[in-house]
Amino acid sequence: MLLHEDRLFPADPATRAVARRLYGEVRDLPIVSPHGHTDPAWYAQNEPFPDPAKLFVVPDHYVFRMLYSQGVALEDLGVPTVDGTAVETDPRAIWRRFAAHYHLFRGTPTRMWLDHAFATLFDIEERLTAANADALYDRIAGRLAEPAYRPRALFERFNIEVIATTESPLDDLRHHNAIRESGWTGRVVTAYRPDPVVDPDFAGFRDNIEALGALAGTDVSTFAGYLEAHRVRRAFFKAHGATSTDHGHPTAATADLSPVEAEALYHRVRGGQVSASDAELFRAQMLTEMAAMSLDDGLVIQIHPGSFRNHNARLMTRFGRDKGADVPTATNYVAALKPLLDRFGNERALTIILFTLDETAYSRELAPLAGHYPALRLGPAWWFYDSPEGMRRYRELVTETAGFYNTVGFNDDTRAFPSIPARHDVARRVDCGYLAELVVTHRLDEDEAAEVAHDLAYRLAKEAYRL
Amino acid sequence: MLLHEDRLFPADPATRAVARRLYGEVRDLPIVSPHGHTDPAWYAQNEPFPDPAKLFVVPDHYVFRMLYSQGVALEDLGVPTVDGTAVETDPRAIWRRFAAHYHLFRGTPTRMWLDHAFATLFDIEERLTAANADALYDRIAGRLAEPAYRPRALFERFNIEVIATTESPLDDLRHHNAIRESGWTGRVVTAYRPDPVVDPDFAGFRDNIEALGALAGTDVSTFAGYLEAHRVRRAFFKAHGATSTDHGHPTAATADLSPVEAEALYHRVRGGQVSASDAELFRAQMLTEMAAMSLDDGLVIQIHPGSFRNHNARLMTRFGRDKGADVPTATNYVAALKPLLDRFGNERALTIILFTLDETAYSRELAPLAGHYPALRLGPAWWFYDSPEGMRRYRELVTETAGFYNTVGFNDDTRAFPSIPARHDVARRVDCGYLAELVVTHRLDEDEAAEVAHDLAYRLAKEAYRL
Amino acid sequence: MLLHEDRLFPADPATRAVARRLYGEVRDLPIVSPHGHTDPAWYAQNEPFPDPAKLFVVPDHYVFRMLYSQGVALEDLGVPTVDGTAVETDPRAIWRRFAAHYHLFRGTPTRMWLDHAFATLFDIEERLTAANADALYDRIAGRLAEPAYRPRALFERFNIEVIATTESPLDDLRHHNAIRESGWTGRVVTAYRPDPVVDPDFAGFRDNIEALGALAGTDVSTFAGYLEAHRVRRAFFKAHGATSTDHGHPTAATADLSPVEAEALYHRVRGGQVSASDAELFRAQMLTEMAAMSLDDGLVIQIHPGSFRNHNARLMTRFGRDKGADVPTATNYVAALKPLLDRFGNERALTIILFTLDETAYSRELAPLAGHYPALRLGPAWWFYDSPEGMRRYRELVTETAGFYNTVGFNDDTRAFPSIPARHDVARRVDCGYLAELVVTHRLDEDEAAEVAHDLAYRLAKEAYRL
Repeated sequence: MLLHEDRLFPADPATRAVARRLYGEVRDLPIVSPHGHTDPAWYAQNEPFPDPAKLFVVPDHYVFRMLYSQGVALEDLGVPTVDGTAVETDPRAIWRRFAAHYHLFRGTPTRMWLDHAFATLFDIEERLTAANADALYDRIAGRLAEPAYRPRALFERFNIEVIATTESPLDDLRHHNAIRESGWTGRVVTAYRPDPVVDPDFAGFRDNIEALGALAGTDVSTFAGYLEAHRVRRAFFKAHGATSTDHGHPTAATADLSPVEAEALYHRVRGGQVSASDAELFRAQMLTEMAAMSLDDGLVIQIHPGSFRNHNARLMTRFGRDKGADVPTATNYVAALKPLLDRFGNERALTIILFTLDETAYSRELAPLAGHYPALRLGPAWWFYDSPEGMRRYRELVTETAGFYNTVGFNDDTRAFPSIPARHDVARRVDCGYLAELVVTHRLDEDEAAEVAHDLAYRLAKEAYRL
Repeated sequence: MLLHEDRLFPADPATRAVARRLYGEVRDLPIVSPHGHTDPAWYAQNEPFPDPAKLFVVPDHYVFRMLYSQGVALEDLGVPTVDGTAVETDPRAIWRRFAAHYHLFRGTPTRMWLDHAFATLFDIEERLTAANADALYDRIAGRLAEPAYRPRALFERFNIEVIATTESPLDDLRHHNAIRESGWTGRVVTAYRPDPVVDPDFAGFRDNIEALGALAGTDVSTFAGYLEAHRVRRAFFKAHGATSTDHGHPTAATADLSPVEAEALYHRVRGGQVSASDAELFRAQMLTEMAAMSLDDGLVIQIHPGSFRNHNARLMTRFGRDKGADVPTATNYVAALKPLLDRFGNERALTIILFTLDETAYSRELAPLAGHYPALRLGPAWWFYDSPEGMRRYRELVTETAGFYNTVGFNDDTRAFPSIPARHDVARRVDCGYLAELVVTHRLDEDEAAEVAHDLAYRLAKEAYRL
Repeated sequence: MLLHEDRLFPADPATRAVARRLYGEVRDLPIVSPHGHTDPAWYAQNEPFPDPAKLFVVPDHYVFRMLYSQGVALEDLGVPTVDGTAVETDPRAIWRRFAAHYHLFRGTPTRMWLDHAFATLFDIEERLTAANADALYDRIAGRLAEPAYRPRALFERFNIEVIATTESPLDDLRHHNAIRESGWTGRVVTAYRPDPVVDPDFAGFRDNIEALGALAGTDVSTFAGYLEAHRVRRAFFKAHGATSTDHGHPTAATADLSPVEAEALYHRVRGGQVSASDAELFRAQMLTEMAAMSLDDGLVIQIHPGSFRNHNARLMTRFGRDKGADVPTATNYVAALKPLLDRFGNERALTIILFTLDETAYSRELAPLAGHYPALRLGPAWWFYDSPEGMRRYRELVTETAGFYNTVGFNDDTRAFPSIPARHDVARRVDCGYLAELVVTHRLDEDEAAEVAHDLAYRLAKEAYRL
């Protein structure tokens, strides 16, 4: 049996009993997924997922980074190359390699997410091994051909009330349009992710700005025209359901330059070679500009700093971005956010959701900031910390200073569609386990814990993201 | 029922049983409070506390920072403005707002401290809610008018053996005088907090130095005269019971300049515009000067670094200092303290107590330093970490390298008088829970654990602070 | 009784039962000790250990640093001075001082290691105290005179399959030779620790380089000749069993200079005064050079960064290096290792084992790096963290991102010979406790946990170190 009904609950029987009761009240709540990276084309076109390897292995950097770390070549896992050099195309061969290394995932959340999907979607009851790889492949491949395994059917089966995808300002949102025009009632909204046009280090930055101006119909030769282009595109995104923006900068730096300084900086970053400090300052200034726009249009701001992207130079050259070679870095928030907070931190109408890849910031910087500034909220444990131990540390390090109500519930943040129910289930179980411990140590009454469990599983995400 | 007799003890029954036994031996020990910020005027004048809002809400930055973070205006909580602009004056209205938001404190130590005071002082048995706000207000207000709720009566009821307040060198200690002359036997001592006269960034620094010289009767136009003024004021404080000094610098930087360099620096910081590096260097040098004086007069040194004070510019302008907008920062100790330790670290006659707002320093820097240098001891989990999880992390991260005997027991560090018994009770319970786990995992025998529990609850604070 | 059979297992009965079963399968596995600092002369000469003080107190910086922190003079513990000033020579007097302060070790791993040795080697059943100090001294001293307590007999009794010592490239490995020529079958290998000849800040660096050239028979006036000398000495070490190199730099900095730059740098560091930045850059470059050599000769690379060595200036002057005054510092890996990883990170034939004294790097930097790069593995919890809580944090912070198979089992890293079985036993117990919790929270099946327990206790160390 792959899924025990008490999984992730604390071992102590009294605590476990409370956790079970709390979980019983939230397990069937609809999924609110306010931040993620699923492909809107899936919902728009509703095509079957092609095969088990393409569903579970090829697109999931959690999976292939672990296999790669133990010597499996990405070519052998079918990960496409930048220059089109041939890679493995036989999905069954990929699946077998994956199965032969499945023990590598012991103790990882990836293992839990995969087993959850295997069990709940495909009625698999035994662990994946080299020996049963073919049988499981056949089972999954067979099901994927059925109508019940198409994206929309799974969306409904997953009980998703609303899901957000993430798009560049240059995206025409055609898939979101198609979803809406199809008459299907699944709620899929976009989110405004302007990195390609606000980060001078992003590939094609200058061309992207031109494209932005063309799409928006504004003159991006001035900073004012460039900002106006953002406003136009934000309105377009908002018309396609967006309630938030998202910013994935290397640091949390913000700036509040004078108009003259900002204009000069804009011309420098649009020009030839951009210095590292100018690139950083422009990203910093743009966070503050985005906050100013959010005060007008109501979009919630998400700041996702601290990832050293594409750390592996050889892999970047051969396979491109997002291939499991992103690494967290130490991230400062207290000084970095001050320019933004000096200007907008006291605005009750603004919501800025902070994430981190540096867990030391939870208790030292983030909880104290979010437990004070009206504009700030804390996003859930993110990426490498979207795991039972990571979520537990998050609650233990954040709650005593910021409470529960300066947090925003759970984000799955995933591009792995079948893992969505598993991820929300893990979060609900871990939160209920944490709450149960507060109850049995008499820090919280059980009726309050039940209310908090519901808030963390459902209400806070809807409210914070204005969904 | 607000207070369960087993609160904060580990959930596991065997561990809980040991914790209960250990706690039973320390629960009624007198309170030694060697560092805090209660107002000596309370004990000197022994006036009733005016009303529930002024007792529990208006002065407690733990309380109003959380309410503020969720959109409650400080004006509506009666927090006074710098310019005297009107704020809420109806204590019942303030109390109702507090009650309506009481759920925000779920999972926080503030909630535990408040419930402890409600239950033990006012016999309240139900959680504060909007519905019972008026009834609880009336209950508390009624009691506060009784003689048994005056400061001295509460001091005795709390079983406080000794409490330290914290004063500026410019304070005339009139309240401490008045306490002594009153014949009341409660032991209230002061502590020497020279930030206003050693920190060039402190408001009024230059005037403060002149005032210091005037009070001490020394010529502060030279560094020697300025140091002599400190010696005079330290002696004055010592005559009023002080056994310690306290230093709240932004970093842990120390310096050991030559006399010529120090003299030149002193003249620079007394002069016009002070550079950030000179301000830092002067604070750093003064820690070493203070240590030199401590070798003579025996005062224990407390270093409280790492708070970014008054981070919220708008709040600072409108409401002034200490309004819940202080945020911890990453703090280095290893390089920062080296000048001081090179000079005095091996002195067995000196006690320097280190605190931190950066928990990453516990196991990486502080425990290794305190587990080696004879002059160093570690203060307890501080401020944001004066909480069940914070205290637990402290023990887990510190003990294996520094043991128990390089720590100094508990400080409540509070200006919230009714929270003092609750805070010491939390510390005793958490320490007993930690010790119980060492016992049941056979790392410590129970007779030893009982001795350690007594040391942590009482003896170590008295010894380290020479009280 | 000093040793309870369930020590260190989780308190919860169900979890403890699983831990007991898992431990039962690994408790008697041979000890593989791939990294440590025992003296090869012990095994070569097989002389009796002289007395209890020289076995347990004088050479163990874990022991005397704690005593020193509480005011015991190192002279009174018999620690020899640099200039030969007299220190205590009576081992019984040293032992009595140690016994009188034994309570200082409550809650520390040192206490567990000592009690383990007292109980298992000397059949002592009561805690060391001032009262029984003499009796225990006599018991231990008596046994040390017996043949069964000579180094080789203890080695066999400890069930050590292989142990590595650590030597400078300037060492002639005479003791390793002697061991081999003696016909004794105990497997003692060396490891190549080139700090004295790659760290320009090491005492005698320039002379050391000359000595290196003389030993290797190469011309070290050029960088090429210097590198060739390393190759020659590495081959010599390899012929004496070495399978690894070890690098104890202040930081994790690496560099990949052009040959011309490297040559110029080499001449600067061999010249007069070396700048701090050149010293750092040379160490950084040499890590990359060592990796290049490892690709040829197969030696595994260990990087042990982040210790601020000999922090206590006065102690360094009087007693020399390694006297318990080393302190961890914040350590960056992501940027620091990039030059090395850009060149060799994707090499499957290379093994680079990373250690840290900065626990914040576990989840933020080390697990993400090791969970991606084929060349990287993570060493176990090290030095101050070679303790129950430290090992537990290591697993909790590392496993979810890097799994178990990017770690390399346990190192005892000790110069305290009698503590070796205790240290491995602690590691096995803590790992089994961690695995048991995964089992009872249904994150891992028990059959898998048993396999992992065996891997962590034995197989991974042998494989990673190629032993």
